[in-house]
Amino acid sequence: MTLNRRILLAARPDGLVSEDCLDRVEEDIPVPGDGDVLLRVLSLSVDPTNRVWMREEDSYLPAVEIGAVVRAAGVAQVVESRRAGFVTGDLVMGMPGWQDYWLLADDNMASVIPPGLEIDDLLSIYGSTGVTAWFGIEDVCDLKAGETFVVSGAAGGVGSIAGQLAKIKGAGTVVGIAGSDEKCRWVVEDLGFDACINYKTEDVAARLVELCPHGIDVYFDNVGGEILDAALANLAIGARIACCGAISTYNAAAPVGVTHTDNLIMRRARMQGFLILDYVDRFVEAIMGLAPLVGEGRLQYATEVVDGLEHAPNTLNRLFTGDHTGKLIVKVSEPA
Amino acid sequence: MTLNRRILLAARPDGLVSEDCLDRVEEDIPVPGDGDVLLRVLSLSVDPTNRVWMREEDSYLPAVEIGAVVRAAGVAQVVESRRAGFVTGDLVMGMPGWQDYWLLADDNMASVIPPGLEIDDLLSIYGSTGVTAWFGIEDVCDLKAGETFVVSGAAGGVGSIAGQLAKIKGAGTVVGIAGSDEKCRWVVEDLGFDACINYKTEDVAARLVELCPHGIDVYFDNVGGEILDAALANLAIGARIACCGAISTYNAAAPVGVTHTDNLIMRRARMQGFLILDYVDRFVEAIMGLAPLVGEGRLQYATEVVDGLEHAPNTLNRLFTGDHTGKLIVKVSEPA
Repeated sequence: MTLNRRILLAARPDGLVSEDCLDRVEEDIPVPGDGDVLLRVLSLSVDPTNRVWMREEDSYLPAVEIGAVVRAAGVAQVVESRRAGFVTGDLVMGMPGWQDYWLLADDNMASVIPPGLEIDDLLSIYGSTGVTAWFGIEDVCDLKAGETFVVSGAAGGVGSIAGQLAKIKGAGTVVGIAGSDEKCRWVVEDLGFDACINYKTEDVAARLVELCPHGIDVYFDNVGGEILDAALANLAIGARIACCGAISTYNAAAPVGVTHTDNLIMRRARMQGFLILDYVDRFVEAIMGLAPLVGEGRLQYATEVVDGLEHAPNTLNRLFTGDHTGKLIVKVSEPA
Repeated sequence: MTLNRRILLAARPDGLVSEDCLDRVEEDIPVPGDGDVLLRVLSLSVDPTNRVWMREEDSYLPAVEIGAVVRAAGVAQVVESRRAGFVTGDLVMGMPGWQDYWLLADDNMASVIPPGLEIDDLLSIYGSTGVTAWFGIEDVCDLKAGETFVVSGAAGGVGSIAGQLAKIKGAGTVVGIAGSDEKCRWVVEDLGFDACINYKTEDVAARLVELCPHGIDVYFDNVGGEILDAALANLAIGARIACCGAISTYNAAAPVGVTHTDNLIMRRARMQGFLILDYVDRFVEAIMGLAPLVGEGRLQYATEVVDGLEHAPNTLNRLFTGDHTGKLIVKVSEPA
């Protein structure tokens, strides 16, 4: 390969990411200057937040500029290094974006990965997905033994791990909310959830009342919107809501309003938003907590790898159509 | 007076409390049985929550039943006691409801008030109003010196005190939101707020951006709905929202949905609901904190006393039309 395929943001998407929002170009492979590192992109993480960064407004990171490469986390391998600490062949975790080659400039965040770890695991269970679930449960939910725990996006990367961690921490009842009978079957039969609501075919509010007769003690929210509202309507006194994601709102033109916020008062409940970005210094703590659970077979996780950079846009869209289970990864190239 | 005037709930109100939702009756003055206390009602507290209790659904207390006296907090004086701890002439704080005479049965909450306190103060600055503001600021807001503090219902009983307490605790900027230029003038000129937005004539979202250029660190919410949404849209990182009341939703047929809850994630912010009911054991702590501030003239509060039990329904409605400043009290009778 002598050219660098890059997928640039040409226009702000309205809803799903369509081809006319993108500019697929082939450019020369960049030449690293002093202090730079040139890397070959191996795998890209497909996350709801990729879509947030495409919006006009800045979020917790600045919006991707029109004409810039689409931002995405991933793993890349050093091809040529002109910076101390990076050696040819090193695997590096960072934000390569949707392209074949990543020129790591001075101020980019990136860390060299110790050898012996699976790349797919680094982008799922030991990456932001697993670590988000870990800190959501450990730091935000304040989950106590015997409590009723509900998670939306239950068959997704974060939700599937959060529900299992809740069960491991002693939750009395763990209820998932997911988008198909097949997903519901997976989280109940394979992951050990007590129940799962198919939000596409069932009345979520009514089912939450049935499945959580004493109210929801902890709700781990990955979706926002109507499902968040249904959870707010059925809180136990002292409930906690961990606001992890709001995927139902990320590409909505007019987001559905949440009407039951007054229940936060009636139930003396708390909603707390969190971002994995704030836990960068504590990643190792989460990985040390997750690894033995994976090793003992107590924590299952699903990863679907899609081969080819060209499929990045459609794969991102699958997060929003619900056509996936577990963590989605785009494989760009094989390690050297 | 030989009869007990009582205002009963005849039907659930739709919007404001209209006369056809009420049944005004005159009954014999009840005769206390063993363990009962008969009291003459002196003053009633007029609170947004009175309207919440009239709804079909239970809230943090059971809904008022159709045919029962309308529930309200207040101060009453013992006429005849058949219970230890209550002596004729004692002033008692509790939930007398909209009536002339209150028969305190065995399981009612009520506490005898030490002598020397003004009844109106007991229902405002040293009652649930002042104490709610106190614990909201002390326990929920986690306010730090220099922070930007916003309070809605700023000219109301709770809001006017909360804003002053925030200033006393060192908030850098205190912004109120109220419903008339006169109210805005009062909170700025008399209470010392830095600014006040008239939500009836100004664009609250735009004004919050102007007045809080670094975002809102703490939002003390008394109203919910659209104004809560405007605050959510302009949070600083790590913001806290104290959910104290949602008066805009209490008699709304279809509450306005809040669309910016995803900002809780982007800004790693917290919303925490609280109820003064949970602080009954700590009332003294609040009163001890408030009294010196009142004594030193650092805390202003406004009380409007409406004379006559018969005016209780219209006075309650004034909370929702915004036609009042500070705390509203209905005076039923003079102490003996």
